[in-house]
Amino acid sequence: MTYNLRSTVSTIPNADPIRVGIIGLSSKKGWAVKTHYPSILQLSSQYQITALYNNTIEASISTIRDLKLTSATAFPTLESFASSSNVDMIVVCLENGNHYDMLIPLLEFSETNMNLRYLFVEWPLRSSEKEVEEICKLTTKRGIQTIISLQGRKSPYILRAKELISQGYIGDINSIEIAGNGGWFGYERPQKSPSYVYEIGHGTDLVTTAFGHTIDVLQYITGSYFSTINAMVFNNIPEQELVDEFGNRLGQRVPKTVPDHLLFQGSLQNGNVPVSCSFKGGKPTKKFTKNLVIDIHGTKGDIKLEGDAGFAEISNLVLYYSGVKVADGMDSIANGKTSYDSGKELMEVYHLRNYNAVIGNIFRLYQSIADFHFNTKHIPNLPNQFVMQGFELEGFPTLMDALFLYRLIEKVYESNSLGSTLNVSNICQYP
Amino acid sequence: MTYNLRSTVSTIPNADPIRVGIIGLSSKKGWAVKTHYPSILQLSSQYQITALYNNTIEASISTIRDLKLTSATAFPTLESFASSSNVDMIVVCLENGNHYDMLIPLLEFSETNMNLRYLFVEWPLRSSEKEVEEICKLTTKRGIQTIISLQGRKSPYILRAKELISQGYIGDINSIEIAGNGGWFGYERPQKSPSYVYEIGHGTDLVTTAFGHTIDVLQYITGSYFSTINAMVFNNIPEQELVDEFGNRLGQRVPKTVPDHLLFQGSLQNGNVPVSCSFKGGKPTKKFTKNLVIDIHGTKGDIKLEGDAGFAEISNLVLYYSGVKVADGMDSIANGKTSYDSGKELMEVYHLRNYNAVIGNIFRLYQSIADFHFNTKHIPNLPNQFVMQGFELEGFPTLMDALFLYRLIEKVYESNSLGSTLNVSNICQYP
Repeated sequence: MTYNLRSTVSTIPNADPIRVGIIGLSSKKGWAVKTHYPSILQLSSQYQITALYNNTIEASISTIRDLKLTSATAFPTLESFASSSNVDMIVVCLENGNHYDMLIPLLEFSETNMNLRYLFVEWPLRSSEKEVEEICKLTTKRGIQTIISLQGRKSPYILRAKELISQGYIGDINSIEIAGNGGWFGYERPQKSPSYVYEIGHGTDLVTTAFGHTIDVLQYITGSYFSTINAMVFNNIPEQELVDEFGNRLGQRVPKTVPDHLLFQGSLQNGNVPVSCSFKGGKPTKKFTKNLVIDIHGTKGDIKLEGDAGFAEISNLVLYYSGVKVADGMDSIANGKTSYDSGKELMEVYHLRNYNAVIGNIFRLYQSIADFHFNTKHIPNLPNQFVMQGFELEGFPTLMDALFLYRLIEKVYESNSLGSTLNVSNICQYP
Repeated sequence: MTYNLRSTVSTIPNADPIRVGIIGLSSKKGWAVKTHYPSILQLSSQYQITALYNNTIEASISTIRDLKLTSATAFPTLESFASSSNVDMIVVCLENGNHYDMLIPLLEFSETNMNLRYLFVEWPLRSSEKEVEEICKLTTKRGIQTIISLQGRKSPYILRAKELISQGYIGDINSIEIAGNGGWFGYERPQKSPSYVYEIGHGTDLVTTAFGHTIDVLQYITGSYFSTINAMVFNNIPEQELVDEFGNRLGQRVPKTVPDHLLFQGSLQNGNVPVSCSFKGGKPTKKFTKNLVIDIHGTKGDIKLEGDAGFAEISNLVLYYSGVKVADGMDSIANGKTSYDSGKELMEVYHLRNYNAVIGNIFRLYQSIADFHFNTKHIPNLPNQFVMQGFELEGFPTLMDALFLYRLIEKVYESNSLGSTLNVSNICQYP
């Protein structure tokens, strides 16, 4: 088990921290202050927040004051923020709006910042596949290393599942079933929830978020993209009941145009493995099954991942394993001998009771970037830039990984509207 | 709960039993002696076996002797068997072969038997949809009441689920997931298993049996046929290892052409409910899930059915229910008042520990036929013939129900070969 070896990132002698400029960090609310900020805080010898940009400069100033970001400057404009040479890494945390509309001017303005090396963008980008592809091209040309918050790939459970499979602990995968419960897309809507979440076309929906994150980790675990897919997208709840923070109905119905159910099935390129997947709107939650269940069956064993939220990237999971390690796993081949576990019937339940997956997976993403930046694992000839993570255990997902996932999601909608099973075996290639 | 009221069939005063002629009853082996025979034996005041037909008359004679069928005659030819007026009901239990090739001459020869009223046929018929349709037409014209062994419909768990749903105990159904493990279609093949089971084109495969029976009970439970479907059929195990009765490998590989996996998804006509369904080949069995799981989610509650075999019709199930009964269920409407259970949070686990589902469901099918024949429930103006059961709680499935299921199965294969999502909303109409 190498997956949970402590990152060597905690001691970085004689090196300057990565200077981070954040768009969208507010001490008052939002995703950035809940996840990016505590992650950076825990890695204070590797990262330092040096610049902030928000809709208003006042928001940045009060955030600097509230969070005591003594090294940070509040910038009045995107241009001044992007061109500041006191920033090595830009983190974009937009709560709303198309990322493309922000990233294109950002990349243009940042051309004068010769220190800019990293661009960290949140999933989903709420942009079209073509727009994401354009950003990919621009950043690759500029030599800017991108990072996408498909942070489920850094979940210890996902990595453990990937490790077990790649080392032959379940033999050949022959069947996969996924059932998820997708958060807020049910019969009721919290009054304070922003309405754009329920309007189609904003790029944040059951397909891009609950399904997107989950199918990304599935591909990552199995080390395979899809070859054929079919999808059916449902909006069976065109109106929702407004409820207050205690769940009381307020007697008001509001329209919903985003999907509340996705049926997806297909086969993986590796082994032609059948994958069945059903994502349901959140409320009411299921009584006899967890909100996220990923069942992976193999010729020599099974892995079950269960979570309390239908979002693999923010849910603290439980991993169940049972099987017999086959002798021809990766490690035996590498060592030229049969490994210790070969042929034994094995069981494992893996769960970190106090693991905060919401922060933890983002934190581990920052760890990976620092490991890369400082080359803490002393990898010889470490390249200056990774175009994509693909299915590597090390590293972090990039905009290219995001682009491939966007293409799959566009195919999901296309399959639904055409009523066709689609061949998608060529979508994970660049350009 | 009316579903398990004792059938009044046990006391039939002053009535002659139904005289049964069976094709394919052998005291030595087979399905008929394991299920039909003990069912009839337990209903000895309602049924009497009067005729047998087998491939050889010796087989019939020895079966009569072994089972002490003192009222039965062994017939040398299909013609003499079919035309005997000492038979009210013909039961066809073919282990192999196309039923059509047997049923057409059978129906022709039986024209001289004026007493013939019932024709009981096993699922699957291993015939094309057109052939099943032709048999339907012939029997309807002749006024012969058909019965098909889609006996899952008589399972107490299936009926309880149907009852809970129809009475509003889970509100409106909004999502269904099914995962099954289909018996013998895995990596290993028992040496003594007949090879036709593994050859495509014999009409007995994962799709017609494991999926067919299960999707039939799903439609029956929900009271709805499908409107759209997509299916992907896999044969990922083109060769199997022969094993002996102890599971030891015999070092011999044999070809397999039947599917070992089915992915199926679609929407029900009622409520546009998304249904996700994955049927896997049997071996190895799944470690962390039962061989059959049917998850039905509603706005007010959930029902989970679990079984040890991926065949709903022969598996002793467990039914789990949790929910709140809504006031507008069928019984409240019928009574014009709110029912006793309205608004209460309810839980139920329903399991008959010693229920033998293999015999039990067939037995209950025979009970239903007797209830109909003797009109034991004293239904006024009971018609002489039912064309189909459809979604009625009472009665029994007929060849017409089988025909509709055949059409769905043909659409499954069509969807797979065309790579299309298909509209199937018009297949459950006659003719």
